[in-house]
Amino acid sequence: MTVPASAPFFSRVVIVGVGLIGGSLALALKRAGAVGTVVGVGRSQASLERALKLGVIDEAATLEDAAKGASMIVLCAPVAQTFALLHALEPHLEPATIITDAGSTKSDVIMAAKTALGDKAAQFVPAHPIAGRELHGVEAALDDLYVGKKVVLCPLQENTRIDVAGVRAMWETAGAQCSVMSAVQHDAVFAAVSHLPHLLSYALVAQVANAEDAALKLDFAGGGFRDFTRIAASSPEMWRDICVGNREAMLSELSTYQAMLAHLKTLIENSNGEGLERIFQRASQARQQWGAQRAPAVNAEP
Amino acid sequence: MTVPASAPFFSRVVIVGVGLIGGSLALALKRAGAVGTVVGVGRSQASLERALKLGVIDEAATLEDAAKGASMIVLCAPVAQTFALLHALEPHLEPATIITDAGSTKSDVIMAAKTALGDKAAQFVPAHPIAGRELHGVEAALDDLYVGKKVVLCPLQENTRIDVAGVRAMWETAGAQCSVMSAVQHDAVFAAVSHLPHLLSYALVAQVANAEDAALKLDFAGGGFRDFTRIAASSPEMWRDICVGNREAMLSELSTYQAMLAHLKTLIENSNGEGLERIFQRASQARQQWGAQRAPAVNAEP
Repeated sequence: MTVPASAPFFSRVVIVGVGLIGGSLALALKRAGAVGTVVGVGRSQASLERALKLGVIDEAATLEDAAKGASMIVLCAPVAQTFALLHALEPHLEPATIITDAGSTKSDVIMAAKTALGDKAAQFVPAHPIAGRELHGVEAALDDLYVGKKVVLCPLQENTRIDVAGVRAMWETAGAQCSVMSAVQHDAVFAAVSHLPHLLSYALVAQVANAEDAALKLDFAGGGFRDFTRIAASSPEMWRDICVGNREAMLSELSTYQAMLAHLKTLIENSNGEGLERIFQRASQARQQWGAQRAPAVNAEP
Repeated sequence: MTVPASAPFFSRVVIVGVGLIGGSLALALKRAGAVGTVVGVGRSQASLERALKLGVIDEAATLEDAAKGASMIVLCAPVAQTFALLHALEPHLEPATIITDAGSTKSDVIMAAKTALGDKAAQFVPAHPIAGRELHGVEAALDDLYVGKKVVLCPLQENTRIDVAGVRAMWETAGAQCSVMSAVQHDAVFAAVSHLPHLLSYALVAQVANAEDAALKLDFAGGGFRDFTRIAASSPEMWRDICVGNREAMLSELSTYQAMLAHLKTLIENSNGEGLERIFQRASQARQQWGAQRAPAVNAEP
């Protein structure tokens, strides 16, 4: 883990949504000695109690109480809740508090933040940690989840340099590497390499499961199907929110993909093996190259 | 490994194409003591010499010489070579010899066999072992590759019961479980759960690799992309042949998939989260169920 030369210290960090993502951040900051008190906010009392018992948070509080004297408030709830959470937070937000989030989409989150916070949106620094596990909930939280992982920051023009640096320092303290992108660029990149693959994987499993001979097909599905469809076991609610939240970029990537499929279909219709092989060859080389370059990072990934 | 009560014995087995699939079959039959002599036939002299050195085959021969006195001839070459191989074999085929294959598509292989062999097509029992590894070539051959794996037999009406039983006994001796399907059913099942996923995975990687910001996208691609695109690193030649060979079933599955994508696109366009969630939910449940049922077999798979 790379701790920045001058390690930051946050006296009071509020985690809104104490699951895998928020819980792992809390544990990482605690491990680094970079936080005074971690306050957990959440809809489920049982989940907050488990977080207290596990030592992931030091206190559980309402959003209003948690905001008092907070150095940093981190939204780790599903992105569709961003507006409601920030709207409830706004009257209690103190001028010195930085707010940030961990959502998979950014343009919609920023729109929600600007609407809910008005001028106080300057205190909101949008972020997206690229990390996950197949397990969910606070029990799955790990203090090293973010070590070697990427975090994308999409700062607003209104953000102060100091606030952006504070969010960056927090994630670097957790072991992550931060990159800066525009929200539009972020949403296009993740539509292509994450959101569209999830949609395509869900679509294939739905097609097979809906077939008259579904049982037979599933019985003969092998390793290729297993890998291709692993992400189709993901949370339907989360991916529903992402598809709707990242609507424009998703539609753009999906249209490009539809054109690619139409082209491949024509090649198959014409038994144009040479044309098919050219595309497969390009994809196969690109994938092998990517795999070779990513091998160490990939092995470190959960 | 389940060896049938009355283990069969094949005095002379000819493997045409001594790579992973053919080599593993040879090793399995040797391990079970179910074969006298294994004869290897192949285009590459170097590869045959390696197979001899590794003890995978006992002799290397031309197709013509190999056919003399053969109990069983197993085609393990790419499916597009089926016609040429059987056409060359036909004049030398002895009446007591059984021929079978290991191709991933069946209707096109059967068409090639009937055209090349004429009346002698009765001696050809089409088969498809569902097994593979990421490694290729005779060096990757394993004597237990087929243990617990499925083999689909698509017998012709012309086949004798004894010949079909012989092919079944051979695969069971290698540790596999045999199922019988019509060629049409086989091709539809594998178009859905194997061939289409490969096409979709190739298409996504080609799309990302062709993007102007390909480097940025690949840099931020994570675990979902990794799993979804693992099969896009597969052999372009092999999948070209399968797409063309299984043309009708591929086009049918692809059309269904295009309709599914068009429907999902409309849901996203209308920000219809409920509609999206319903489809994701169905897919997620089906995938989780499949994963739970297949866990032991999946772990055993390479």
